[in-house]
Amino acid sequence: MAEAERGRRAVHRVWRAPETPPEELERLCGSPEHQGVVAEVDPYPYADPGTLLAAEDALVVVLDEIQDPHNLGAVCRSAEVAGASGVVIPERRAAAVTPAVAKASAGAVEHVPVARVRNIADWLKGAKEAGAWSYGATAEAEVVYTDVDWKGRAVLVLGSEGRGLRPRVASSCDQLVSIPQRGKLESLNASVAAAVILFEAARQRAPSA
Amino acid sequence: MAEAERGRRAVHRVWRAPETPPEELERLCGSPEHQGVVAEVDPYPYADPGTLLAAEDALVVVLDEIQDPHNLGAVCRSAEVAGASGVVIPERRAAAVTPAVAKASAGAVEHVPVARVRNIADWLKGAKEAGAWSYGATAEAEVVYTDVDWKGRAVLVLGSEGRGLRPRVASSCDQLVSIPQRGKLESLNASVAAAVILFEAARQRAPSA
Repeated sequence: MAEAERGRRAVHRVWRAPETPPEELERLCGSPEHQGVVAEVDPYPYADPGTLLAAEDALVVVLDEIQDPHNLGAVCRSAEVAGASGVVIPERRAAAVTPAVAKASAGAVEHVPVARVRNIADWLKGAKEAGAWSYGATAEAEVVYTDVDWKGRAVLVLGSEGRGLRPRVASSCDQLVSIPQRGKLESLNASVAAAVILFEAARQRAPSA
Repeated sequence: MAEAERGRRAVHRVWRAPETPPEELERLCGSPEHQGVVAEVDPYPYADPGTLLAAEDALVVVLDEIQDPHNLGAVCRSAEVAGASGVVIPERRAAAVTPAVAKASAGAVEHVPVARVRNIADWLKGAKEAGAWSYGATAEAEVVYTDVDWKGRAVLVLGSEGRGLRPRVASSCDQLVSIPQRGKLESLNASVAAAVILFEAARQRAPSA
């Protein structure tokens, strides 16, 4: 909520405790989890997917069919803190930016642009034409994410937890990369995997690197 | 559950669907969230905190008063996948390894040793005597986590979300380090921060680095 006020959405009206009775806040919010403030805001302002790669050092995260709102929110939080230029999600068979996602993102969706596209593979084709290099994260890849060049326009593609990248999406990437798993478990949470790779990109891009 | 069977705990008896009726599984588990299998196991086998730094390249994660079971579990999952040698938690004012933590860790607590200590600052003093270098993660640190040497015996100390490291714990670290925040939000989730730093340590330790 505080992030919504600092973000890009028009806020039309705000109700706060204690001026507003608790039962009224709960009714307005539609849930008891309002943390003492409820606002009437515009619908989520999805970004134009064609603009995300405008900057020469754009770093975009593409999420292929992540369906759990908590995961989507957590990935957006990682992306925002790591300085990603934007997040791309599919229009169908995937979580959209709902109030639950906004909350799970700790408000990150109010700051990092999220765009919806009809087809991920088509968007990746356009990204290639725009001069970006696309890296798909998959446990099976032999190339390690630290051994590729994250400078310039870059796209990180993550699959859903459990199923990973779909074949057509994987084949639309320029390179598949993996995070070496050093323990006995098979995978990292999606938001953790996103952060590990995005901060490696940031490390490579930092002036001292 | 599958991880408990592969892990270090003695499993005394296992009940599975469909041999066991659903209502019996729910009664045995004490919750409907049993995913079709319930086991009677030993209590969580905490590790001896004196053994975690035995290896010359030991990498231990210390959690100062993390109280949310989901956060503790998620940090253990990150630590396990990144190949950490162990996790240290305080005996008091912190989440212990409960079934909820085991589940949030995706079973990681069955593989990565978790030790409880009476006093974090005292344990860090012992770690220094054992030849380890302790790095405390805090947003205020001027030194970036990628600019320090993670080879050899190393300890990563993380504070609770919100409050960060307590002063006495921070002053027991050899060096404070930060993760550069490139967006507008102030912090990463604890399990994400742990993974970002642990995988940088792993990157520095990899043969090709």
